[in-house]
Amino acid sequence: MPKGQPVSIPDDGLSTRARRNQPVLAVHTGAGKGKSTAAFGMALRAWNAGLAVAVFQFVKSAKWKVGEESAFAALDRAHTDHGVGAPVQWHKMGSGWSWSRRQGEESDHAAAAAEGWAEISRRLAAGAHDFYVLDEFTYPLKWGWIDTDEVIATLAARPGNQHVVITGRDAPPALIEAADLVTEMTKVKHPMDAGRKGQKGIEW
Amino acid sequence: MPKGQPVSIPDDGLSTRARRNQPVLAVHTGAGKGKSTAAFGMALRAWNAGLAVAVFQFVKSAKWKVGEESAFAALDRAHTDHGVGAPVQWHKMGSGWSWSRRQGEESDHAAAAAEGWAEISRRLAAGAHDFYVLDEFTYPLKWGWIDTDEVIATLAARPGNQHVVITGRDAPPALIEAADLVTEMTKVKHPMDAGRKGQKGIEW
Repeated sequence: MPKGQPVSIPDDGLSTRARRNQPVLAVHTGAGKGKSTAAFGMALRAWNAGLAVAVFQFVKSAKWKVGEESAFAALDRAHTDHGVGAPVQWHKMGSGWSWSRRQGEESDHAAAAAEGWAEISRRLAAGAHDFYVLDEFTYPLKWGWIDTDEVIATLAARPGNQHVVITGRDAPPALIEAADLVTEMTKVKHPMDAGRKGQKGIEW
Repeated sequence: MPKGQPVSIPDDGLSTRARRNQPVLAVHTGAGKGKSTAAFGMALRAWNAGLAVAVFQFVKSAKWKVGEESAFAALDRAHTDHGVGAPVQWHKMGSGWSWSRRQGEESDHAAAAAEGWAEISRRLAAGAHDFYVLDEFTYPLKWGWIDTDEVIATLAARPGNQHVVITGRDAPPALIEAADLVTEMTKVKHPMDAGRKGQKGIEW
């Protein structure tokens, strides 16, 4: 896609540069494929631009999306070994977050999700990373495990130029309202409709 | 997204394994963001699964998407240095393809696009790679620079288990019909609507 020109110039008193360097809140939602995949693609670009990446996966199974995790581990190592790109951290809820003393316990998923968000809030306040992927984060919002209004307030108050991408179906309307960039992925056709199961390298 | 179960089992005489290991033709289309980004995310997963990746960018400017190109160069080097993942090739049309003696010339874009497709056809016939990204490939189809029916016939006849992902707006209906996996990215909201220009690490 060409970089293009804005369709209108807002009357906000900011220079183009100041307006450009604003933190982006992006939401990828809809029933189609590619929500997380596009978020990881954005993280790839951020990595190359030298932005420190942190991925938080709000998934119950540690078996999901291991492919991306390995690839970003290789990119993190490329940063350490060759000084290219940026550091990458990858955390997944699974049966407990990597930073948690409760890791490995069969914990309450609602509590684990709330704990994940509390940690992300602290990191946002501290400016710990430059580019955050909150993968499948819409589900704990939808299920009421995490308060959407509190998330929006915390994101609005985040300091510096920290970018956040949130993925998952059924993003709450208030989150879509708060976001700068919203893309809906719509399923047009999927191999599973034709009775095909997933395969390594394509689905996971 | 959970791996899920097929909604129906086709009466094609294939085992689940044989049906699973079929080459996938995916199309990412629509006016929204994330078409290419999701394709590069899929390539990341393929890389981790040990599938040899080749990206062909049908873009006029060599300045586009340099972020992803650098990241995949780091992944290619990780394969060479540490034996992880798989090799990655990255070719962009720019003002001539990397394999072409005409590289650097201000060439005819239609001729360059046709040359790119001819090379991809040869590679598909030879089984040169496992995972192809034909980025922004719908445009030369739309503009009639490359014949859509010939592309579909070549893809249908490709040997082995070579996966192909095609991105771009306005994918021809016949291509969507031929694809196994089609996702439409729909723009809901974009920062440029609010007069913000792109920024490094986010837009490129």
